[in-house]
Amino acid sequence: MTTSSSNSKGKLYLVPTPLDFACDTLTPLTDVLPLATLQTAAKLQHWVCENAKSTRAYLKRVGEICPLLQPLQAVNIQELPREVHKKGDHPGSAGASFDAKPLLAAALNGFDVGLVSEAGMPAIADPGSSVVRAAHDLGITVVPLVGPISLMLALAASGLNGQNFAFVGYLPSDTALLTKRIKELEQLALKTAQTQLFIETPYRNTALLHALISQLQTSTRLAASCGLTLSDMQTRSNKVSVWRQQSHSLPLSLPAVFAIG
Amino acid sequence: MTTSSSNSKGKLYLVPTPLDFACDTLTPLTDVLPLATLQTAAKLQHWVCENAKSTRAYLKRVGEICPLLQPLQAVNIQELPREVHKKGDHPGSAGASFDAKPLLAAALNGFDVGLVSEAGMPAIADPGSSVVRAAHDLGITVVPLVGPISLMLALAASGLNGQNFAFVGYLPSDTALLTKRIKELEQLALKTAQTQLFIETPYRNTALLHALISQLQTSTRLAASCGLTLSDMQTRSNKVSVWRQQSHSLPLSLPAVFAIG
Repeated sequence: MTTSSSNSKGKLYLVPTPLDFACDTLTPLTDVLPLATLQTAAKLQHWVCENAKSTRAYLKRVGEICPLLQPLQAVNIQELPREVHKKGDHPGSAGASFDAKPLLAAALNGFDVGLVSEAGMPAIADPGSSVVRAAHDLGITVVPLVGPISLMLALAASGLNGQNFAFVGYLPSDTALLTKRIKELEQLALKTAQTQLFIETPYRNTALLHALISQLQTSTRLAASCGLTLSDMQTRSNKVSVWRQQSHSLPLSLPAVFAIG
Repeated sequence: MTTSSSNSKGKLYLVPTPLDFACDTLTPLTDVLPLATLQTAAKLQHWVCENAKSTRAYLKRVGEICPLLQPLQAVNIQELPREVHKKGDHPGSAGASFDAKPLLAAALNGFDVGLVSEAGMPAIADPGSSVVRAAHDLGITVVPLVGPISLMLALAASGLNGQNFAFVGYLPSDTALLTKRIKELEQLALKTAQTQLFIETPYRNTALLHALISQLQTSTRLAASCGLTLSDMQTRSNKVSVWRQQSHSLPLSLPAVFAIG
């Protein structure tokens, strides 16, 4: 593949973080990040992130395993603007036109830059894609590093179709719209054999689970994964007819991923 | 979440492998697998896999970092039947009804079992989902471990929408059907802002790239990632109008992931 990036430019590393954001217990980083990811993070002196405070906390944890190249105080951390937090920065969002190029000035000056989000892989179910698009537009090489991605851990653990799947984000909270959307996703899953994955804000986990159990057809398979990579991780996957045999609840403080197929 | 699995049963670990399958140069395992994944793999004495030979090769590499609990010769490795290789074992495939329960006899007897595929995460763009479904049906706890997932590395590196995306597998090789499918996926991506991801057998990489460049609309963004996690990894993401300004080719021996949005 011909590449227009010049060797004098820095690279943009997409750096995954653990999935324990805002959780009571922290996951040892070596449980979820390969050594190469930790070593790269420890070397980077320029960062773009959602929140500087959590990025510093992350780098402090990295430094306990791989000593940071520079003291944390000397690391340059730039936040995506509030605008992006509210509107998103992915294609199709209200903030899609946000120009992230200025955030990559260091890369144009030859320094490698790291992109992180609060949990998991930046730009997947998280902000950051505007920075990646800006990098490509500037001819900056983009290097994704390996780490935990809750959607895929949940998909693999569901036993549902992993050869054809979609992640559709959040479902509506309004009861009538939620019912409509559940039926729509179920029809799509049954008609096309495409697994449909979605997420919910933790405090509504159990409410969504109950809505799914009551509204899906008995022969549809429903999977719910909670606390992925954490010590209290749980995945359950069964036909709806089996889910209906017992009452169920989900922790209301842990992120969950749902899948139907 | 109420779980029906009994403590006396073993667990089913979904164990990711590196993305260097059939590649000339091997990736150091510590580049792509967290220590916890390696330590778990080193302890497991029972495996279900696509191919016993490559599983032994993988375990040999694991053992060079984390000594195996048992000599390799004593590890029990069961292959998914040829039938599954040909027909698939995911819901919607001709082999969806394959009963994998007998492969989990060791777990019912209290031993942990590992599931691996040839590259990346089992049951994602790879066989294995029948084993995961069987585990849930038998009340065996399923634990997905962290490792490289090419589809998500490619998605993050594309700068395309990671809040709504679909993986649709392979596109047809017949020219007329391919053109139809490309137009269909582009319409879907543009109408719903859902990124469409797909893969191709490596020897057709460049042919598919050329078909995409010539048939997509100029304002559509096209991304192609090749050799993810390997030393010669490359990602390019641009509007089709930019792709058309130069001629492009892709390595015909490395797996590629394509995305449009």
